[in-house]
Formats: sequence, structure tokens, C-alpha cells
Amino acid sequence: MRSLAILDSTLREGEQFIKTFFTLEQRVMIVRLLDRLGVTFIEVPSPVSSPETREAIEAICALNLRSHVVAHVRCVEADVQAALDTGVYGLNLFFGTSNELRSYSHGRKIEQIAHDAVPLIRRIREAGRYVRFSAEDAFRSDLVDLLTVFDAVVDAGVERIGLPDTVGIATPRQVDRLVSLIANRYPNVGIEFHGHNDTGCAIANTISAFEAGADCLDVTVMGIGERNGIASLSGIISQLYIHYPDLLAAYDLTQLVELDQYVADCLNINIPYNMPITAPSAFTHRAGVHTKAVLRNPHAYEILNPTDFGVVRHVDVGSRFTGRYAVG
Amino acid sequence: MRSLAILDSTLREGEQFIKTFFTLEQRVMIVRLLDRLGVTFIEVPSPVSSPETREAIEAICALNLRSHVVAHVRCVEADVQAALDTGVYGLNLFFGTSNELRSYSHGRKIEQIAHDAVPLIRRIREAGRYVRFSAEDAFRSDLVDLLTVFDAVVDAGVERIGLPDTVGIATPRQVDRLVSLIANRYPNVGIEFHGHNDTGCAIANTISAFEAGADCLDVTVMGIGERNGIASLSGIISQLYIHYPDLLAAYDLTQLVELDQYVADCLNINIPYNMPITAPSAFTHRAGVHTKAVLRNPHAYEILNPTDFGVVRHVDVGSRFTGRYAVG
Ligand SMILES: O=C(O)CCC(=O)C(=O)O
Ligand SMILES: O=C(O)CCC(=O)C(=O)O
Ligand SMILES: [Cu+2]
Ligand SMILES: [Cu+2]
Repeated sequence: MRSLAILDSTLREGEQFIKTFFTLEQRVMIVRLLDRLGVTFIEVPSPVSSPETREAIEAICALNLRSHVVAHVRCVEADVQAALDTGVYGLNLFFGTSNELRSYSHGRKIEQIAHDAVPLIRRIREAGRYVRFSAEDAFRSDLVDLLTVFDAVVDAGVERIGLPDTVGIATPRQVDRLVSLIANRYPNVGIEFHGHNDTGCAIANTISAFEAGADCLDVTVMGIGERNGIASLSGIISQLYIHYPDLLAAYDLTQLVELDQYVADCLNINIPYNMPITAPSAFTHRAGVHTKAVLRNPHAYEILNPTDFGVVRHVDVGSRFTGRYAVG
Repeated sequence: MRSLAILDSTLREGEQFIKTFFTLEQRVMIVRLLDRLGVTFIEVPSPVSSPETREAIEAICALNLRSHVVAHVRCVEADVQAALDTGVYGLNLFFGTSNELRSYSHGRKIEQIAHDAVPLIRRIREAGRYVRFSAEDAFRSDLVDLLTVFDAVVDAGVERIGLPDTVGIATPRQVDRLVSLIANRYPNVGIEFHGHNDTGCAIANTISAFEAGADCLDVTVMGIGERNGIASLSGIISQLYIHYPDLLAAYDLTQLVELDQYVADCLNINIPYNMPITAPSAFTHRAGVHTKAVLRNPHAYEILNPTDFGVVRHVDVGSRFTGRYAVG
């Protein structure tokens, strides 16, 4: 069986969602729930973000979770040092490689990116920590630029390389092609994918990346993040449950609803009705044709078993819709 | 250029969402907005659902919209007759073809399905109306069963056949395979796709269907529907805008936000933060790295131009997150 790591970035990408203002206590509760559920990595912001972030990171590391805590860190010496000074398991480095980000964000040439990243990767490896390097905006990056940077960081000893669809432009087919190419070229490192949802394909793209060879998938609770977010944990779990159930063997799926509900409460929102598994109506059947069949056998209109997630089915036979299509 | 019809089913699939209780006035306003936006088909429930539904259908037909109004009707004689008695442009017939639906929903054998549907299709054609036949739960149906039914209905003169992923189990790859096969076998009829979101891939599956040969895509406003819904209109529009902009030439995209907001108000909910284009934060940038670059050039972290949708960008420089990653 192939291995698959889920990386939850609720405390990093999720904190970039406009409604997120987690307290320390909330951060601790979220990582405890993520750890109980069984995610492999928990991503936290860079400790240089604020003194409060640094304290939260230390508090989270002190919990001695099974999940590995990784800090999301720019390829800047001071930032790397600050992360190494905490108890994190590893560092997730990132650097924009597209023309757009090179022009409007950091202004570096491609050679400069490799030149900046390589010594930092060596230093992190020497410090005995895990290190990943991600090419921000990979899906708008020129392939030669991308490979030039990846060649250098793989050579420097990075353990995983990341392909984020930073602006949410990719299709499942494009993800398949690029991830396959990268997986073939770099067979000795892990591959991570991170998909934004601007065109509504974050979950599909993330699963496509896995099928093409990625071994680490980024998610957040309920998909919260910059703009309209990234792949949701519940979406990826629903996919794995249907198509690759063995990969969920070590997960405690009954934690999922509590986790989504907890974060929704922190944000003062409801779990959106379109969330796989955790939406309040994910297992509610309303049309007469549906309710009639589901009462005979839920499998008629259900592919996920609510019991496996500790939730209950609701068959709406009381509404004005009961009669709809209920005749035949 | 290939042609593409968008079918909006907010008044039918959308009414199966647990929170939906549209008044007649709201239904009329929704179809007016859909018509202004430019969708090809507007799907309404079967007039036998209730006297109130029948009245709503008549009121909608009387508006003389550019959009074609189609009724979603079981393959039952009385239902077909009732629909023909209204002013609808056409009838969207459906019949469950999977073992699950044949066993737990209607109890019919495959031969019986074709036998029931064929005379109804002929009758609708003779009445000079448009007719589509959809194999409910197509993605759990045996291929021989599916083709047996489609062979019969195509032979009977149906103008379009539908492939709904009724339980939300399909992947973009599976959709690609099945739609391609069907498009090759039936080159003279249109092909419709309808994708549920149980595993979070409704939008990706719907676009995959288009790329494989479907010429009619089902959506609802904000993706509302049974359980956790189907592909959202805004999701499909965001995909077309990026990958097939010519197909949107006749659309008035500035109607989209008003439409989503109107339906959200009807349902007494907020537009979910994960909606493409219409989410309140779809064009909000928060992390320091992002805001800095976006202030230089929005293209750095934006692939959709908010102006085209009549909305404005928000750069969040006032929060406690301003400093995050803002250094380099
Ligand atoms: O470091 C990464 O791989 C992802 C960074 C990020 O949030 C993005 O590019 O969208
Ligand atoms: O008639 C159709 O194509 C779709 C019916 C429906 O809502 C479904 O199968 O999910
Ligand atoms: Cu991101
Ligand atoms: Cu449906």
C-alpha cells in the first residue's frame, strides 16, 4: 500500500482566512483534535510572524503530539533560524517561482531562488530537522524555471518538494500531468500538493495529485484559507473513504464532525451546507423519490455511511416536499 | 466553437435543499435573474408535485424569458401529460437505472424502463416539445443496462440524454471515460451532466463532462440541492471564465453576485466563504506576502478579475495579520 500523509494547515493557511482570529487555547484544542483524528503533519506559521505566534508554536510542540509540527517559513536566514529555535519537527520552506510572483512579490531571479534556498536546506538538514521546499505558484511557473529550482533543492537534500496551486487555476488534468512529470524526475523525494479553490476544483485537484504520485496532501478544516480557501479535510477524507479506504485505517473518523464544528464555532460561522460529510444536511434526504427509497435502504442515495463518522441520517418526511415525486 | 448550454436547476434540485422554501415571488425573481445572466435552460419541478408548483410553472412560462423552461418529470403518463398541459418548452425525463435504484426506488427491470419511456418520448416529440431522458444514478449503473436504455430512448427520438452522478461518487477521470464513451456512441443527441458534491468534486466532474463531450451542464445557484448539493453556477462560470471564456460571451456576468445574494437571502444564509467568485472574501487578500504583492499588481494572486463580475477587491492591511510574512 502506498503511504499518504495529510498535512493540515488550519493554523497557517486557515489563519489567512478573513474571519480567523484563533486564541492560543483554540489553537491548542484544534491541534489536539487533528492529532486524535490522525493527520501526519500540522503546519504552523513562521515564528517571526509575531511573538504570540512563537508562543503558540512552543505550546503546541510541548503537547508531544503524534502529528509532526512543521513551520511554514520563507527562505530567509533569520526566519529559518527562528524556526530552528523552536521545537518544531521540521520546516516547510516556500519561494514563488512564477513570473508573476517573481515580478510582484519578491523580485528574485530563478538562479537567486536556488542560491538562497540551498544553504538553508543544508543547514536545516544539519540541524537534524525535516525540510520541504515548495515552489509557490508552481502552476503558473515556467517548467524550466521550476525544474531548475527543484533540481537544486533536491540536490541539496530536501526531503519533500511542494507543488502549490497558489491561485487556484489548475484543472485535475493539469495537476495529473505536472505531478506525474515531477514524480518521475524526482523518485527519491516526497511530493506535496496544495490546491486553492478559486475555480472550485481544490478537492478534485488534490486527489488528482495523489493519483499522479504526490504523497502529502495539504488541507484545512472546512477548507478555510486565503480568498475562498483550499481543499477541505472532510472533502479529502470523503474521497479517500470511497476510493482508498485502506489509507484511512489509522484515522479516527468520528473526530471529524467535532473538529469542523469546533472551528466553525471559533469563526462564529455554520459549517457550510456544501461540506462533504460534515454539512448539517450531508445525510439529509428530502425529495419524495429519495426519502421513500432511503427508508427501504439508505444505500439507494448514500455512498458514505454516516455511522462511520458518528453522525445520523435525517429523512425529511415532514415537510411540504414529502409529496413531491412520491407517487411512483 | 462548441456550443454549451447551462441548465440551472435551483427551482428543482435547489428546492430539494433542506433550507429551501421559495415563495412564488422569489421563484419569479430568481428566474428573472437567471434569464438576465443568460442561462440556456431553467429546470422546474414536475407540475404534479403540488397545485402551487403548477401555478409557479405557469407564472414562469408567462414571463416569456429567453431561457427555456423545462420540467423535471418522471416517466409516468399522468406526469408527462400534466407537464404538456403547461407552457414549458420541454420535459426532462428521468429514470433510475442502477441496481440500487431499481431495487429500492422503483422496482422496474431494465426492459421495463425502456418500455415505459419510449412511448412517452414519442408523445412529447409529437407534441412538438423538447425532450431529454436521464439515467438517474448513471455512475453506479451497469454499462450494458445503461446502453440498453439509451439505445432505446435515442431511437425513440430523444434530443438529449443525461448522465447524472446522483450520489456524488464519480471522479473527473470516471466522468471523462463514461461521457466520452456515450458521446462516441450517440453522436446525434446532446449530452447532459449533473454532478452531486458528496465527495467534493461536483464542479471538477461537471467540467470534465464538458471536456469529454457533454453540451449541457446542470448547476444550481450556490450549488444548493439534496444532501450537500451539486455544482454551483459560480463554480462553473469561474471554470469557463478561465478555460473557455468564449463560451461566456453572451452572459451578463455582473448578474452573478446579485443572484447568489438574492438566493442566500431567500434561504436566510450567507453565501458560503468557499464559493468561487461570489464568496464575500473571494477577492480578499490577507497574508502580508499576498497583500504586498497584490497592491503592486493584483494579477500576482488573482486569476479572476473582480471588475468583470462587478465586485471589488479587498486588501486587508488593517488586521493583526498585516505583519505576517510582510518582511521580505
Ligand atoms: O508552501 C506551500 O506549499 C503553500 C503555500 C501557499 O499557501 C500557497 O502557495 O498557496
Ligand atoms: O434528471 C437528472 O438528470 C438529474 C436528477 C437528479 O437530480 C439526480 O440524479 O441527482
Ligand atoms: Cu495557500
Ligand atoms: Cu440531483
